[in-house]
Amino acid sequence: MALRYDTITFLSDYGLVDEFVGLVHSVIRSITPEATIIDLTHNVPAYDVRAGGLTLARSVPYLCPGIVLAVVDPGVGTERRSIAVDVGDGQSILVGPDNGLLAPAVAMCGGATRAVALENPEYQLPAPGATFAGRDIFGPAAAHLCAGVPLDELGPPIDPALLLPGVLPVSHFDGPDLMAQVLWIDSYGNAQINIDPEEIDGWGDRVRLQFNDRWHTAHVVDTFRAVGPGEIGLVVDSYGLLAIAVDQQSAAQQLGLDSATSVRIAKFADGQEGDKPEGVTTAVELSPRKNGGTPAPPAPEPAGPEPTNAEEGQ
Amino acid sequence: MALRYDTITFLSDYGLVDEFVGLVHSVIRSITPEATIIDLTHNVPAYDVRAGGLTLARSVPYLCPGIVLAVVDPGVGTERRSIAVDVGDGQSILVGPDNGLLAPAVAMCGGATRAVALENPEYQLPAPGATFAGRDIFGPAAAHLCAGVPLDELGPPIDPALLLPGVLPVSHFDGPDLMAQVLWIDSYGNAQINIDPEEIDGWGDRVRLQFNDRWHTAHVVDTFRAVGPGEIGLVVDSYGLLAIAVDQQSAAQQLGLDSATSVRIAKFADGQEGDKPEGVTTAVELSPRKNGGTPAPPAPEPAGPEPTNAEEGQ
Amino acid sequence: MALRYDTITFLSDYGLVDEFVGLVHSVIRSITPEATIIDLTHNVPAYDVRAGGLTLARSVPYLCPGIVLAVVDPGVGTERRSIAVDVGDGQSILVGPDNGLLAPAVAMCGGATRAVALENPEYQLPAPGATFAGRDIFGPAAAHLCAGVPLDELGPPIDPALLLPGVLPVSHFDGPDLMAQVLWIDSYGNAQINIDPEEIDGWGDRVRLQFNDRWHTAHVVDTFRAVGPGEIGLVVDSYGLLAIAVDQQSAAQQLGLDSATSVRIAKFADGQEGDKPEGVTTAVELSPRKNGGTPAPPAPEPAGPEPTNAEEGQ
Repeated sequence: MALRYDTITFLSDYGLVDEFVGLVHSVIRSITPEATIIDLTHNVPAYDVRAGGLTLARSVPYLCPGIVLAVVDPGVGTERRSIAVDVGDGQSILVGPDNGLLAPAVAMCGGATRAVALENPEYQLPAPGATFAGRDIFGPAAAHLCAGVPLDELGPPIDPALLLPGVLPVSHFDGPDLMAQVLWIDSYGNAQINIDPEEIDGWGDRVRLQFNDRWHTAHVVDTFRAVGPGEIGLVVDSYGLLAIAVDQQSAAQQLGLDSATSVRIAKFADGQEGDKPEGVTTAVELSPRKNGGTPAPPAPEPAGPEPTNAEEGQ
Repeated sequence: MALRYDTITFLSDYGLVDEFVGLVHSVIRSITPEATIIDLTHNVPAYDVRAGGLTLARSVPYLCPGIVLAVVDPGVGTERRSIAVDVGDGQSILVGPDNGLLAPAVAMCGGATRAVALENPEYQLPAPGATFAGRDIFGPAAAHLCAGVPLDELGPPIDPALLLPGVLPVSHFDGPDLMAQVLWIDSYGNAQINIDPEEIDGWGDRVRLQFNDRWHTAHVVDTFRAVGPGEIGLVVDSYGLLAIAVDQQSAAQQLGLDSATSVRIAKFADGQEGDKPEGVTTAVELSPRKNGGTPAPPAPEPAGPEPTNAEEGQ
Repeated sequence: MALRYDTITFLSDYGLVDEFVGLVHSVIRSITPEATIIDLTHNVPAYDVRAGGLTLARSVPYLCPGIVLAVVDPGVGTERRSIAVDVGDGQSILVGPDNGLLAPAVAMCGGATRAVALENPEYQLPAPGATFAGRDIFGPAAAHLCAGVPLDELGPPIDPALLLPGVLPVSHFDGPDLMAQVLWIDSYGNAQINIDPEEIDGWGDRVRLQFNDRWHTAHVVDTFRAVGPGEIGLVVDSYGLLAIAVDQQSAAQQLGLDSATSVRIAKFADGQEGDKPEGVTTAVELSPRKNGGTPAPPAPEPAGPEPTNAEEGQ
C-alpha cells in the first residue's frame, strides 16, 4: 500500500514512565500499520509549550518530510483547538494543539499553506471519559493523513493567519547593544541564545555579556574545545546559533543561566556600561555574585562527576 | 514473508539504562526480522507485578492484535513457569511469567483459550549462566509465534484455569458505602480507582471519600479542568474509570495517596460517619492530618514548579 | 530496494531528554528509509568510553549482523578520528570515534578486517557550526553503508592495528590469587567482574574476595536466588561472567563496589592473607568499614524500597 506520508515524527511531554507514548504508537499502527514513527523526544518539560516549540524548530532542518505529531498541551480542557497545519504545499503536515507549539516550526517551513480544526469524529477514537488527545485525536489524525485521508476531511478550514503564534523570541538592539535571550539549555549545560553568528560579525574575538545583573567577558571561539579554563565562550553550536559555554562544565550551572534568561551583548570596546574595573576574563563562578565588584575567584571543580563540556561531543 | 502475527507489544521493568530492552529487540529481529515491536513502557516499577498487570489491562483496548510480551519477574529463580496464553481463539497471545502479570489483561480479553508452558529448548536461546528470561525465553517465544510456530510447539499445554490469577482488586459494598482502591498514580498525580462511573450513578454531584483515616468531600465533575481551587474532584479519566484529582496539582502528593490506598465512598446525604462538622469542601492539604477534627487550612502552593493537573492534557 | 545491511544497532550517551537520538534516527531515515534502527541504550554514562565499550562487548553475541553505530565521544573537538571498522570480512561494520569505544566489540568479533577514516564530505552533512558527530558524520555513514556505499568510499584506509585499543581489563595472577576488576554495575546492583567461571574451576564452593582493603567470603552459587541472607555470592551471570551479588539487595551499594573496583580472589583454604579471624560468612554492611577487624554487624534493611536481587529476573 502506497502511503501519502510514510513518516510520523512524534514529540511530547508524556515522559517514558507511563504507557502514554506506547499507546499512541499502538493506535497509529492499528490505523496505518505501514507508517514509521520516529520518537524525537518525549521528555519535553511537562506543559512547557515554549520548550517543545523550540525543540521542533531546531529539528526542522533534519526531519523527514511527512507528519509531525506534537503534543504539549496544558490547555486541553479549555477551548483551544486541535489542528493540522499544511506546510510546503503538502510536503509536510504538523498536527497538535493550537497553542503556539507548532508555530515556530511552521515559520521555519515558510509558513502554513492551509490549516484545519480536527473536529470530524469519524477520524477520532471515542474517549471513554476525559480525552487523551494524543491517543484519541492527534495520533489518529496523523495516521489517517499518512493513509491518504485529505486534510479537509479532518475538519473545517481555519485561516492560518489566525493560528496562535509561537513565542520565538526575537533579538533587538538597545542602543549599540544586542538584546538576546537564552532559548535552550542542553544536557551538557550549554545555553543556546537567539543570535545568529552573523549578527555579531565584526565585533571582534571578545564581547561583553550581561545577564542576571552582572557583566562577563566572553571569548568568541570556533569550537567548544577552544574555551579556555575559567573562560566563558560564545560558540556557534551544532544548530548554527550562538551558545554560551564554559570549559568542561555546565555553563547553565556555573553562570546561573536558565532557559529564558535575558542576555545583553555589548562590543568589548564600548565603555558605557563599564562601571566597574574589569579584566579581560571574568572568572566563572558557581552562582551570580550578590556583592558588588569584587573579582570572583576561579570556579572550584564541582564535587560530583561533571561531564566535560562538548556539545560537539554529540 | 507473511507473518502469523506482525506486532509485538513489549512491556517490562527493565528500565532504559542498561541494554536489556535493546538486546530483546535484537534477539527478536534475529529470529523474525519482519515483526514490529511497540515499546509500551519499560519503566514499570522494578518487580511490581501488580503495576505491570494493571498497565497491560488499561492498555488492552488500544493494543494491536498480535503478541504481548510482558516481563516483570521477581520470581525467576524459583519454580514459577514461563507461559504463553492464547486469547480470543488465536487473535492474540500473551507471553510472560506465570505470576499474575498477564492475568488482568487475559481477563479483559475474555479469558484464555489455551495456554502452554515455554519448555521447548528448541525455541529458546542457551543461557551462558543465569537466565535473562526476556532475551533467552520470552523474546524468542514471541518471535517464533510471529513467524508461525504453533503455540503447542513451544511446550506442554497448561489448564488455563490453573494460571496464577492477577490481583485486580474488586470493589464491594460495606453497608451503603462503596469500598474502592487506588489502582494507579499517573505521572500527573491523578489517582485512578477501581470504580466505574456507573457505580455511583445517582449519587449526586458530591460524594464523601474516606482514606488514610480522614474524610473528604469530592465533587463529581466531567473534566479535570472543572475541579475548582482547593477542591477534590472525582473525574472519569481517559480510561473510563474514576480518578481522584485536585486542581492543577498532584492529588497523590496533596492527599497522601499511593498506588494501593483503600478508599471508602459514601453518599453525601448519609450522616452515619459524620462524626465531625464538615463543610461542603474539605481543603486539600499536603499530607494527612494527624490531629483530630480541626478544619484543614487551604493548601499552600508547593515551592517547586508543579505541572498543572490535566490527564486530559495527554 | 535490497540493502547491503538492513539493521543499525545504535548506542550512545546522548540520553533521552534532548532530541539528539531522534535527530540521528531522522537523518538515517532520510538517507536510507528501509534500514531498521535498534536502540541498544542511550543512557551510557556521559563520556564514559569504557562503559560504552563494555556494553557493546557484552551485547555482541546477541546483535543482528549489520551496522553498529556507537557514539560516546568526549574528544570530538580534538584530533581523534571518526572511523568505520569492518569485522568478519564484511559481516558487520562498526562506526564511531577512534577512542577505544569500538575496540572491545571488534575484538569479540575476531578483530578488524579493514578500517577507514570517515573523511569523505560527500557522505556527511554540512555542520552549521560545531559538529554534532552522530547527526553529521556517524549517522550518515551508517545509513550510506546500509544502502550499499562501499567502505572505502567513506574515506582513506587505516591500518586496523593502529586503531586506539580499548580498555578491556585482563585478569592476572598475583601469586596464587586471581586479580580481577569490576566491569559493570547493572541496574540491580550486581557487580560483573572480568572472570570466566572456568578460571576458578576447582576452587570449591567458597572463595575469599578482597576489595576496598577488606576481605570477604563469597559463596560460589549457580543462581542469584541461591545467595543466602547476609551472604555474598559469586554467580555466573546472564552474560557468562562472574558477578558479585548479595541477597535481594544491591551488592554495589551494600559492599561499596563501583564500576572499576579491583577485586582479589583467593582460595578459601589459603591462609596467607588471613590476618584476622574470619568465619565462614562476612556479613554484608552498607559501606566499607574503616576501623580494623571488628566483625561487621548484619546489614540493616535499607530505609527505602529496594528491588529484590535478581539479574535472573530480566
